[in-house]
Amino acid sequence: MITGNMQIPDINDVYSAAELIKPFINRTPVMTSKTLNKKLNCELFFKCENFQKVGAFKFRGACNAIFSLSDELAEKGVATHSSGNHAQALALAANMRNIAAYIVMPSNSPIVKKSAVEGYGAKITYCEPTLQAREQTLNAVVKNTGAVFIHPYNNFKVIAGQGTAALELIEFVKDLDFIITPVGGGGLLSGTLSTVSSISPKTKVIAAEPEGADDAYRSIQSGKIQPSINPKTICDGLLTSLGDLTFEIIRKYIYQIITVPDDVTIKAMKFIWERMKIIVEPSSAIVLGLIFENKEMFRNKKIGLILSGGNVDLNKLPWSINHD
Amino acid sequence: MITGNMQIPDINDVYSAAELIKPFINRTPVMTSKTLNKKLNCELFFKCENFQKVGAFKFRGACNAIFSLSDELAEKGVATHSSGNHAQALALAANMRNIAAYIVMPSNSPIVKKSAVEGYGAKITYCEPTLQAREQTLNAVVKNTGAVFIHPYNNFKVIAGQGTAALELIEFVKDLDFIITPVGGGGLLSGTLSTVSSISPKTKVIAAEPEGADDAYRSIQSGKIQPSINPKTICDGLLTSLGDLTFEIIRKYIYQIITVPDDVTIKAMKFIWERMKIIVEPSSAIVLGLIFENKEMFRNKKIGLILSGGNVDLNKLPWSINHD
Repeated sequence: MITGNMQIPDINDVYSAAELIKPFINRTPVMTSKTLNKKLNCELFFKCENFQKVGAFKFRGACNAIFSLSDELAEKGVATHSSGNHAQALALAANMRNIAAYIVMPSNSPIVKKSAVEGYGAKITYCEPTLQAREQTLNAVVKNTGAVFIHPYNNFKVIAGQGTAALELIEFVKDLDFIITPVGGGGLLSGTLSTVSSISPKTKVIAAEPEGADDAYRSIQSGKIQPSINPKTICDGLLTSLGDLTFEIIRKYIYQIITVPDDVTIKAMKFIWERMKIIVEPSSAIVLGLIFENKEMFRNKKIGLILSGGNVDLNKLPWSINHD
Repeated sequence: MITGNMQIPDINDVYSAAELIKPFINRTPVMTSKTLNKKLNCELFFKCENFQKVGAFKFRGACNAIFSLSDELAEKGVATHSSGNHAQALALAANMRNIAAYIVMPSNSPIVKKSAVEGYGAKITYCEPTLQAREQTLNAVVKNTGAVFIHPYNNFKVIAGQGTAALELIEFVKDLDFIITPVGGGGLLSGTLSTVSSISPKTKVIAAEPEGADDAYRSIQSGKIQPSINPKTICDGLLTSLGDLTFEIIRKYIYQIITVPDDVTIKAMKFIWERMKIIVEPSSAIVLGLIFENKEMFRNKKIGLILSGGNVDLNKLPWSINHD
C-alpha cells in the first residue's frame, strides 16, 4: 500500500511474515486474569510476548527481515545499532539463518546485554554513547562488511513481522473493542495497526506512551515527527523517536495515544507479577497502567493488550525491597 | 488401597478427583526452555502450578476435599489451620461451594496473607504462633461451628487432589524418566506418587527437600517420622513435618529424597524468573536446584518438574537489589 510517497505494509505483508517466521518463533500464549477483569470491570486478553524468543516481540520483526533477504543479500550478514532487545533478536535470527550479525553498541551497555548478544554469536562493535557515534560506527561497519542494515523499527519487513503478534491475538479472540500496545520507535504499534486496520477494523488501537517520553503523542498532535529529547522514564524500551515510516502508519490508523506516568506503570508491573505470576518489563506493563488510569473508558469492554517483553534486570527493581 | 492399616489413595481416587475438580481448577500449562535443556543436557517439562488458582497446587487438594463432602457434612463449613497457600485454597474452594471456611492463623501472619483469605470470604481466628495454640484454637473452632477439619496435607482427599497435577503432566508428556516435586508435609509428593506409581511405573519420583529442613529425608532414612524441629530455609512452604498418611505413601513408592542448599535454590529461582519469565516461589524453584546440584544423574534424561506455586512477597527477594 502506498501512502504519501512511502510504501507501508498491509495485511498481506503481515500474512507473508507470519508464514515465513512460523518455524522460528514461539506462538505465545494469550493469558487472562479473573481477578483483574473483576477489579477493572472489563475483559482483558494479554498477548504474552515476554514468552517470545529472546524475551520480546522484537524477534518477530528481526526474523522476518532476515529470512526475507535473498541469499545474495544475506551472504554478507546483517548489522544494526541497538543495546536492547532488537540486538539480541537480530543476533539470534542471524544465527538461525547461519549468517553474520554485526551489532553496534554503546560502550557503556550493561554486561548482561553484551553477553546475551555474544552468546548468539554476533560480533559487537563498541562506540561512544551518542547518537552520532552510533550512526558513524554503524556506517563504517556496513561499509567494511557489506552487511545489510536492519533498522530496529523503521523498516518495512520489521514492521510486518511485529504485526504478527496482533494477528495471533485476533485469531485467538474476536471482536475486541480495543488493542493497546506500547509505543517507542513505533515498530510494534505500526505493525499492529497494519494488521488490525484490515482484519478487525472496528477494534480501536490505542498506544501507551510514558509521560516522560511523550514524543509520539506530540508527533501525532502536531502532525510532524517530534524527536525524543532527554526522555525520562523507567520504560527503557520506549525512549526512541518515531521513524518516518512508523509515523506514517501511526498517523493514518491510530485511534489515540495516551501517556502514562511511571508510578502507575510500576504499580501495573507489580500487579502483573503478583497476580499473573509472569515477568514483564516496565515497557510492557505500561499498557495495563493505561487502563488503571482510564477505567471508565474501558468499562465493560473487551481489550487486547500486547505485553511486549520480559527482559528485566532482577537486581534492579523499581519498588522498595526489604532485606532482613 | 490398604497398606499397613491405613487406606491410601490409588489412581482411581486421583481420577475421581480430576473429574470432580475439573470445572473449578485451571488446567495449568507445561512449559519448556531450550536454553535450560541445552545448559543442562536434558529435557525438562515444567508443570506450572504457579498459574493455578490462588497461585499454588494447594487449590487442587482443597477443592477435592470440599467438593467430596456430602451436603450434610458440608453444611456447617470447613476449617483448617494454615497461614499459607492451603488457607487461601480452602477459603476459595469453600467460597465456590458457597459454604463457610474457618481459618486458624498465627497472629503474626503477614497482612497480605490475612487479606487474601478474608478476600475469599473466610473467617479468620487468630492464635498464638505455637503449634499447641494452633491445634487448641482449631479444636475450639471445630467444636463451636461443627465445621469439618481439612488437614493441609495429611488427608486422603487432599492427597488425591494433589495427584491430579502429575496426572495432567503425564497426559502432556509420556515416558518421563523422572518427576521431581518438592516435599514439605508431603501432600504434593504423595499425590504424585499415587498417580505415577500406577500409570507411569517406570518414572522415578524424586523429592527435593531444603537442606535446613530435611525431616522427610531423615524420616525415610530412619523408617520413622522425624519431626521438623527449628527448620531453617528460605522455602517457607516446606517447613512442616510429614503426616502418618503422607509418610506411608512416600515410604512405599519414593525413589529418592535429595536435599538442596538454599543458595542453589535461590540461584535456580532467579534463573527461572530470568529465562522463563515466570514467577515461582523458592519452594518451587528447589526442584530445579536439585538438578543444578546433580547434573550427571539427569544427563540425557526426560524430567518432569512440578513448580508448586508462585506466591512470593515481591518486597522481599532473596537476592541483592541495587537501588539507584
